[in-house]
Amino acid sequence: MKLRRTGNLLTRLNSECLKAERKYNMIQSRFDRVLAEMEQAGISQLLISDPQSIFYLTGIENHPMERFWALLLRNDGKHILFSNKLFHIPATPLEVIFLSDTDNVAEHVAAHLLNETLGVDKNLPARFLLPITDTKGIRAVIGSDCVDNVRACKDELERSLMRRSSEINDICMEKLAAFIHDGVTEIECARYLDKCYAEFGCDGLSFPSIVSFGANAADPHHSCDDTVIKEGDCIVIDIGCVKDRYCSDMTRTYFWKKADPKHIELHNIVREAYEKAAALVRPGIPLCELDAAARNHIAAAGYGEYFTHRLGHFIGMEDHEKGDVSSANTTPAKVNNVFSIEPGIYLPGEFGCRIEDLVIVTEDGCEVLNHVDRGVKILGI
Amino acid sequence: MKLRRTGNLLTRLNSECLKAERKYNMIQSRFDRVLAEMEQAGISQLLISDPQSIFYLTGIENHPMERFWALLLRNDGKHILFSNKLFHIPATPLEVIFLSDTDNVAEHVAAHLLNETLGVDKNLPARFLLPITDTKGIRAVIGSDCVDNVRACKDELERSLMRRSSEINDICMEKLAAFIHDGVTEIECARYLDKCYAEFGCDGLSFPSIVSFGANAADPHHSCDDTVIKEGDCIVIDIGCVKDRYCSDMTRTYFWKKADPKHIELHNIVREAYEKAAALVRPGIPLCELDAAARNHIAAAGYGEYFTHRLGHFIGMEDHEKGDVSSANTTPAKVNNVFSIEPGIYLPGEFGCRIEDLVIVTEDGCEVLNHVDRGVKILGI
Repeated sequence: MKLRRTGNLLTRLNSECLKAERKYNMIQSRFDRVLAEMEQAGISQLLISDPQSIFYLTGIENHPMERFWALLLRNDGKHILFSNKLFHIPATPLEVIFLSDTDNVAEHVAAHLLNETLGVDKNLPARFLLPITDTKGIRAVIGSDCVDNVRACKDELERSLMRRSSEINDICMEKLAAFIHDGVTEIECARYLDKCYAEFGCDGLSFPSIVSFGANAADPHHSCDDTVIKEGDCIVIDIGCVKDRYCSDMTRTYFWKKADPKHIELHNIVREAYEKAAALVRPGIPLCELDAAARNHIAAAGYGEYFTHRLGHFIGMEDHEKGDVSSANTTPAKVNNVFSIEPGIYLPGEFGCRIEDLVIVTEDGCEVLNHVDRGVKILGI
Repeated sequence: MKLRRTGNLLTRLNSECLKAERKYNMIQSRFDRVLAEMEQAGISQLLISDPQSIFYLTGIENHPMERFWALLLRNDGKHILFSNKLFHIPATPLEVIFLSDTDNVAEHVAAHLLNETLGVDKNLPARFLLPITDTKGIRAVIGSDCVDNVRACKDELERSLMRRSSEINDICMEKLAAFIHDGVTEIECARYLDKCYAEFGCDGLSFPSIVSFGANAADPHHSCDDTVIKEGDCIVIDIGCVKDRYCSDMTRTYFWKKADPKHIELHNIVREAYEKAAALVRPGIPLCELDAAARNHIAAAGYGEYFTHRLGHFIGMEDHEKGDVSSANTTPAKVNNVFSIEPGIYLPGEFGCRIEDLVIVTEDGCEVLNHVDRGVKILGI
């Protein structure tokens, strides 16, 4: 199509071309980085089956459920997207092979594989993995780090989406704190949150909301139940939404009407542990050192055995992405990594406290995505 | 504990013992059936990682996310549940091994495996499968049919839960039909449904609700968007909720204010196709014959190429469970199988129509779980 340069139309078309070009460049850059990771890992062919990773690399959204949906990347450039005739997917410059429900997936995939070790997605289900490697007679290794390492460093668009998701999460946390009232149950709080997020047009929850009263909070993964709030309870609220595909995740611990002085002390210890870890974040610092900073502070206060989980996890299109902030992970933090910092203390049968924010690693430190006050707050007074 | 036989207390304890005993018997029966399936398949050890299957066999609920959570069944009776120190699980007669986040999962599992082929869950992720088989040096085969074949025949408790879930779905379908109004968008319909299901205390949706207006309905898997309803539109509503763990799933196709006579004819063809398939359901009939009955009817009417998917899928704790009603599945229907019957006709760019019910196979036919009228209905008049 040839364009006549005529005023508004041209401006609009130019702007659309620019958008398309930007999108193309963004996706090209992601592709290039994944191929570079494959070269470095010595993987000549990589089968990516995570729908989020495929979206990340192609801009094509799909919910394949139990059907096969995979992107084969080959170092000779002969990339192939395996789809199903049932999936309506937009035009793409990629070669697409449409399978039907009665096709033998393994045979179709094997026909496009090199006689070399196959890198596969960490979550490729056994029902695809075993028939493919059996049919082709090749070895498989986990290769999704090549994508996950790239996804772990958020680009500009992703950072802005993560900021917006956490901004909504901040607002909903404060709305929930204001909603809590005598007689309320944990489940009612979770339902109220569903409505709050829906008002912001969220896609859904990052994970089932955790609202834990009193002794329930001693279980970091407590599922909301019919427990009614009572005076003196701690209230652990660990929540997150998905907005425009990107997740938020934060935790605050409040008290209802009054607080045991010992519990206030524990809350302060957890907040200080959070601050010690957050203050250290910068490119190059081994992630285990962040975990150690928080853990040592809690241990020094005598509660080391009650901080029962890792300090944090990476996050993006999924609530838990590859990469954790734990004693076992010596990997250095990189610019634009996004992860949680969430120390906690859990006294079985009595009490739990956790404080969690998301941070983006910057050139010289970090940007904290959550801004709700972290201090002791007694609700209902 | 020795019980004194004293009136009410005894009655209460007796009733609790009875409940516990019933639960124990139910779970024991499921275990026995899975072990029998393993023997028949020649699988001496089976690693089950599907949390729903583990719940089904142990009564223990867990949301392991990326952590390892698996039940190893061995034909010598040395069953082991692999858990994580972070998971709070109730007391169980099973042997439980609690791993920590820094433990090598593959080594722990391999230490409890026989030097024989390992049956694995169809969805066991590659990141567990490859290290386990590499460490132990054994072959793996897909073994989850041993559980899925048992789950495919619902026991009494399951059938009553599936009836209740579909009963709620029927009510919500009719509420939504009454809610649709001029100016409404697909997404607003989906949000309204969320509220309807929440009022019944549902756990969530079986799958993202499909509400498709007009030409959008030509895509059987259309995602709700901001399309506004307009006169003459068909309205495909494919929805389901999860209530007490069990899924419902049904589809009705309505019209808005008026209907093209050709579209009414297509609706009648689809309904007749549904009726032809439903009338054939009984134990022993090959599932492909049900698909053929519906497909032949649509083909005879000249629309064969526009019925682009299989007739149905099995359903239970998951919306899509193992087992489908397709031309490729010659397996005979069994008593207490539960599946969908959902023929459709899709005219690209113009129109779509689908009618779907769930059925339970009975001794001499089937019990249909959905009762919303299947005939042509023009809303808004």
